[in-house]
Amino acid sequence: MFKVIYPGSFDPPTNGHLDIMKRASVLFDQLEVVIAVNPQKNYFIPAEERLKMIRIMVKDLNNVKVVTWEGLVVDYAEKTNARIILRGVRALSDFDYEFELSMINKALNQKIETIFLPTDQKYFVLRSSAIRELAMFHGDISEMVPPVVEQALMRKCK
Amino acid sequence: MFKVIYPGSFDPPTNGHLDIMKRASVLFDQLEVVIAVNPQKNYFIPAEERLKMIRIMVKDLNNVKVVTWEGLVVDYAEKTNARIILRGVRALSDFDYEFELSMINKALNQKIETIFLPTDQKYFVLRSSAIRELAMFHGDISEMVPPVVEQALMRKCK
Amino acid sequence: MFKVIYPGSFDPPTNGHLDIMKRASVLFDQLEVVIAVNPQKNYFIPAEERLKMIRIMVKDLNNVKVVTWEGLVVDYAEKTNARIILRGVRALSDFDYEFELSMINKALNQKIETIFLPTDQKYFVLRSSAIRELAMFHGDISEMVPPVVEQALMRKCK
Amino acid sequence: MFKVIYPGSFDPPTNGHLDIMKRASVLFDQLEVVIAVNPQKNYFIPAEERLKMIRIMVKDLNNVKVVTWEGLVVDYAEKTNARIILRGVRALSDFDYEFELSMINKALNQKIETIFLPTDQKYFVLRSSAIRELAMFHGDISEMVPPVVEQALMRKCK
Amino acid sequence: MFKVIYPGSFDPPTNGHLDIMKRASVLFDQLEVVIAVNPQKNYFIPAEERLKMIRIMVKDLNNVKVVTWEGLVVDYAEKTNARIILRGVRALSDFDYEFELSMINKALNQKIETIFLPTDQKYFVLRSSAIRELAMFHGDISEMVPPVVEQALMRKCK
Amino acid sequence: MFKVIYPGSFDPPTNGHLDIMKRASVLFDQLEVVIAVNPQKNYFIPAEERLKMIRIMVKDLNNVKVVTWEGLVVDYAEKTNARIILRGVRALSDFDYEFELSMINKALNQKIETIFLPTDQKYFVLRSSAIRELAMFHGDISEMVPPVVEQALMRKCK
Repeated sequence: MFKVIYPGSFDPPTNGHLDIMKRASVLFDQLEVVIAVNPQKNYFIPAEERLKMIRIMVKDLNNVKVVTWEGLVVDYAEKTNARIILRGVRALSDFDYEFELSMINKALNQKIETIFLPTDQKYFVLRSSAIRELAMFHGDISEMVPPVVEQALMRKCK
Repeated sequence: MFKVIYPGSFDPPTNGHLDIMKRASVLFDQLEVVIAVNPQKNYFIPAEERLKMIRIMVKDLNNVKVVTWEGLVVDYAEKTNARIILRGVRALSDFDYEFELSMINKALNQKIETIFLPTDQKYFVLRSSAIRELAMFHGDISEMVPPVVEQALMRKCK
Repeated sequence: MFKVIYPGSFDPPTNGHLDIMKRASVLFDQLEVVIAVNPQKNYFIPAEERLKMIRIMVKDLNNVKVVTWEGLVVDYAEKTNARIILRGVRALSDFDYEFELSMINKALNQKIETIFLPTDQKYFVLRSSAIRELAMFHGDISEMVPPVVEQALMRKCK
Repeated sequence: MFKVIYPGSFDPPTNGHLDIMKRASVLFDQLEVVIAVNPQKNYFIPAEERLKMIRIMVKDLNNVKVVTWEGLVVDYAEKTNARIILRGVRALSDFDYEFELSMINKALNQKIETIFLPTDQKYFVLRSSAIRELAMFHGDISEMVPPVVEQALMRKCK
Repeated sequence: MFKVIYPGSFDPPTNGHLDIMKRASVLFDQLEVVIAVNPQKNYFIPAEERLKMIRIMVKDLNNVKVVTWEGLVVDYAEKTNARIILRGVRALSDFDYEFELSMINKALNQKIETIFLPTDQKYFVLRSSAIRELAMFHGDISEMVPPVVEQALMRKCK
Repeated sequence: MFKVIYPGSFDPPTNGHLDIMKRASVLFDQLEVVIAVNPQKNYFIPAEERLKMIRIMVKDLNNVKVVTWEGLVVDYAEKTNARIILRGVRALSDFDYEFELSMINKALNQKIETIFLPTDQKYFVLRSSAIRELAMFHGDISEMVPPVVEQALMRKCK
């Protein structure tokens, strides 16, 4: 079976992302989390720090690897012989954007397929942008992100 | 890797369904098409005939099996040791229903996951209910369903 | 310019339908209201009665004709040399269905185009099925349908 | 403050409905659950039985009353001096229908307002129609409906 | 009954906001309009000016108070003993965002509930961001905002 | 028949836009492409260059004119005696925004109507913002935009 890649910006990674990683690591033989970096965007947390955070989050999942990638996700898939892009979908509004993104990726490379895994109901609210805003207002995010992420956000927003 | 099942009523099967079957047979080791039969529903084409149609449609896909099942899809998955339910999603409105269905299945059996594969753009219009209506009005459906299905529908709607 | 056809079941016709007819009769040279009849469906009001009602509703619009048609709408368009199918869209949920219908019609006949005209805000609530239900419960529908329709529904639901 | 009514068919009542009843009984002074009966519809569970079930479900909520009503909900509100119709909304697709319903009710009676309370995430999957189908297939619905409802459905679907 | 708060940025306040305030002041015993201020955002109209505008708009509604608040809305609710957050919803797209926001607020404070009141049809188009853009292009906004807001925007966009 | 205008930012123009222009030039007597310029926005491609690009794209369509306009689109329509604004809609998410925009334009000028033409399935993925991003990552956009646009984007993103 083909390697599955799970791309995203993960800025920050949430318990919802972790749930997808755990479930996908059970379903698929090999999973690679790809932190997609757009050099023209400003991120809340530097890519290197997100890489470290996610590595800590998945350290017990033996078939999961984490990398950063600057470029088109389909090019990473092509280069590393992955055929499946995995995306978590939380709700209808997510799906709209995701559907379009999957069609663009299909147009760029016909061989690579996108599959969607629905987010667990417990994690519906965990949009990274909302978590950044909560952290800035010192809202309690301990149920929303893994401990390593919570500590980093608290340091950052002091 | 786990067996993947692709359940549906396929009443009738369309070129869109066939496209999902072909693409999934490349992505996954083993695929099982499950014609889900609800004894309290009236179907346009009898289950046995749909079974024969789909077997003809996938006869060149070596890792694809076709069965009928009367009961809950999660029970079939549990019984046959499948862990992944595959569903094609054509558009936003599909997804809404599919998302809810996947949550119900998760509630019935936590171990079994649903994944979604977006329908190819060429097949967006191929809803089985629309094809039934076109067939009844003698519309041209030759681009919408495989030849074996077209012939059966033409016989039926003469 | 090509003739524009405005198909629908109009069961019953509403003030929202009338609003589309009036506005389209200003925008386009020739408009034809096509009451699409599916012989396998049960209608609340017989097609002939709907034809009479709509003719009364548009009697002051000189460039509007009303017909009934049993068959595919694109076949009517082809036969009568119309190139544009007009549909009113009230809201997002309408559009979803309408979009799919327009793609099916495009697949059946590439030459014929569907255009959408948004319903006026005043008429958002006027779904024919809701009006049938209100009429059965003797709700006040005098603001929702033209007088000729209201009287017919009142006779019917006495 | 005005009495709040919570209308629905509740066929069957679910844990999601019960959750709305409990939360509304905290927020509002007086809540009335109105089982809306349409004499032209076939129900899975007779209205009288639904009335008994819901009375058992809310027996510890002192400010909650349960009634059945055959007619338009706004007429019940007018007659009993309620000014607020409460509806639970589970997801986007619900809201679409609910929004339209609220506009129809507003058109019928300007004085009566509809407010929406979002369903708790735990109860997103609990659509009554899905529960009926699960019950018919002997799926496990013990987490989805109160015990009194589960027992009745099990007796019914034996 | 609990106090109800109606938070928002109101940048600028519109006739749609005013409509919600008026209707809510009839339905609930006490209403508090909370101008939520995020110190990291740039606003079109300073918070103090919005406060004055809304106070003028609601001066005849005796049970309505207006305040500004810098922080999480649930913290304001907790601090002032409010249990209900009221949000106006204009259309499906609004609801999507609002639904998520309500779930985040629920996650932050289980005791505080969000209820939605649908915007009156007349005010569907009144998104504050659209009004800002119209004002900059000197479009006629006299039907969209109260006089006190129109005058301020005209001064600002001269 | 009235002149039809097709406004947009076209930053850059895509094959999807060109498809709408071609189809509309068949359906309507006179079409005018209006490049709407908001002086407070930053564009990827200057308005003058977009004007040249689109003129090259439509040079074989005799009834199509291209202009730039700084101001409200309804004011351009009024000034030039157009009665119909044409907008292409690719999918549900487009429609939501477009529907609201059409209601705002209706509020600004009751005489001017917006009609929607669905984008051809082949061009669903062609959102200008996605094409800008692909161009920056040197993705292959030759199937997505006309040659004149591809060359300009390649020069720009070298």
